[in-house]
Amino acid sequence: MSKTFRKIVLNSRPEGTPKAKNFKILTDEIGDPAQGQVLIETRYVSVDPYMRGRMNDRKSYVPPYELGEVISGGAMGKVTKFASSEVNEGDWVIGNWGWQEMSLSNANTVRKIDDDTHSITAYMSILGMTGLTAYFGLLDIGKPKEGETVAVSGAAGAVGSVVGQLAKLKGAKVVGIAGSETKIKYLTNELGFDAAINYKEENDIYEAIGDACPDGVDIYFDNVGGAISDAVMAHINLNARIVICGQISLYNLEKPDVGPRIQPQILINRAMMKGFIIGDYQDQFETGLKELSKWLSDNKLSYRETITNGFENISKAFLGLFKGENIGKQLVEL
Amino acid sequence: MSKTFRKIVLNSRPEGTPKAKNFKILTDEIGDPAQGQVLIETRYVSVDPYMRGRMNDRKSYVPPYELGEVISGGAMGKVTKFASSEVNEGDWVIGNWGWQEMSLSNANTVRKIDDDTHSITAYMSILGMTGLTAYFGLLDIGKPKEGETVAVSGAAGAVGSVVGQLAKLKGAKVVGIAGSETKIKYLTNELGFDAAINYKEENDIYEAIGDACPDGVDIYFDNVGGAISDAVMAHINLNARIVICGQISLYNLEKPDVGPRIQPQILINRAMMKGFIIGDYQDQFETGLKELSKWLSDNKLSYRETITNGFENISKAFLGLFKGENIGKQLVEL
Repeated sequence: MSKTFRKIVLNSRPEGTPKAKNFKILTDEIGDPAQGQVLIETRYVSVDPYMRGRMNDRKSYVPPYELGEVISGGAMGKVTKFASSEVNEGDWVIGNWGWQEMSLSNANTVRKIDDDTHSITAYMSILGMTGLTAYFGLLDIGKPKEGETVAVSGAAGAVGSVVGQLAKLKGAKVVGIAGSETKIKYLTNELGFDAAINYKEENDIYEAIGDACPDGVDIYFDNVGGAISDAVMAHINLNARIVICGQISLYNLEKPDVGPRIQPQILINRAMMKGFIIGDYQDQFETGLKELSKWLSDNKLSYRETITNGFENISKAFLGLFKGENIGKQLVEL
Repeated sequence: MSKTFRKIVLNSRPEGTPKAKNFKILTDEIGDPAQGQVLIETRYVSVDPYMRGRMNDRKSYVPPYELGEVISGGAMGKVTKFASSEVNEGDWVIGNWGWQEMSLSNANTVRKIDDDTHSITAYMSILGMTGLTAYFGLLDIGKPKEGETVAVSGAAGAVGSVVGQLAKLKGAKVVGIAGSETKIKYLTNELGFDAAINYKEENDIYEAIGDACPDGVDIYFDNVGGAISDAVMAHINLNARIVICGQISLYNLEKPDVGPRIQPQILINRAMMKGFIIGDYQDQFETGLKELSKWLSDNKLSYRETITNGFENISKAFLGLFKGENIGKQLVEL
């Protein structure tokens, strides 16, 4: 028996900042699951900055979306029908089926959430891809040591807010950079950051970072790039580690940006800069999730989510990422 | 009994490209060695691009030279008097006493060359700091694998010429970038580079690198920085390693330069960039020298030196580095 559902496809490739017209809602039909498949009713959809890269028709770390194709990405839902022994009706599953109300997925492409210790949305945020991104990026590449200074850009976002807390757990001093007073207060009052800088209010971001990091920066966890990163790079210490996780400030530029060359800083300070994506750590996800879950249960970590309601608001929530509207993980509840 | 000798001191800090007037030859007197000291008659002096950084009054990986101070740096000479049981008259020693005709050095600050397998100047070039720089930078940071493409800038210089040969020994494809037809021929005809690009003759260096590296660049060993590096960075592959060894094209700039931001390339390609200085590997020098010496004896490595004659020509030889006058290691014979 086929059902009608809505899906969001890429209607045109954005030039610069994405606009509503780049997306289109289509109605489609879905049948019963074949052997090995499950029919999922979507409950939560993830919108993430990296998706902007896939909207361009050029090489990135994931292949570009095709025009007319559903915007794929993190999604969570409940199994409504199944032809697989691995799941049951009503199971919560996570997968990458993206911006659609229903999905007919192969059972081996979804992950069953069989842990009810935490709120269900946690598995889409701090215990999902963004939490793991913070975990492996900071701990495996940054390798914070007690007493070191860790600077985080995009600090109040889904990844940054976890990075800062993990760095605190490792005994580091943490300085966050974010774009509103609400975010700054969240970082210092709720998450225990040692300092936070509102880059939109500072006349001289270089000086502000210098004031907040009198001993220099040992680890820079970079989610934003651009002028903020230029300023942080000017404060790095000997043997600094720079973790390149995102460059959200550059994703919507129509031409590649220029800035001060950083190689001299990297040479003088014998620093190391590394880019990564979370998929590189797939075989260690379980270890990471176990530790994150433990810290969460022990109240050593906290998290926030920004949850928008309604399927028709998915693209709006996505566009909001580039305006810095979210604190913590941005989800859409269907 | 005191002896008269000449030394070269920093007379003024260069603004931009160093000039002869930034250096001054002074006459000084030297006495007999005290206990533990040796009196050395300098035979060879090293001039290296990194010394330019020490002429500025700002933080770099080595402290700045003081005005009126002898320009210190690699030097080699013969022991003429000694008050130490570790050396004898006539021994060849290497140290860091720099641009002076004689030195009263503590015996524990010099290294005795007690191997006569190779030409004595080899211990100042391929079996000295520059050879070791190539060895550890390429093998420890770059980690070339068979079939990978290695691009080297400053390819005909003391470090670059060794890097390319080591990469060939590891089964990589090697593309050198240098600034004259003589250098290009040296790289391809004598050193076995797979291709070499004369950046001064190319209209489009980006395209030239693309043509020479059809499979992209897996390792970039960077001695020069600037526009050449911009072009190479645009061709890096997934999991590329970028070894920052020098940035000679930027050393004489009066203001920090701008260029295309490289973080997006590093992120998309999950690349790693690292700066280093050879001092970081001090405890492994012996291992490196042993292997380099073996390869040299087996004719698996070759090297050239550019040797200028005369104490009074030291600063001229140094200035020549920035005009690309040398092939291989630039030394001055006294």
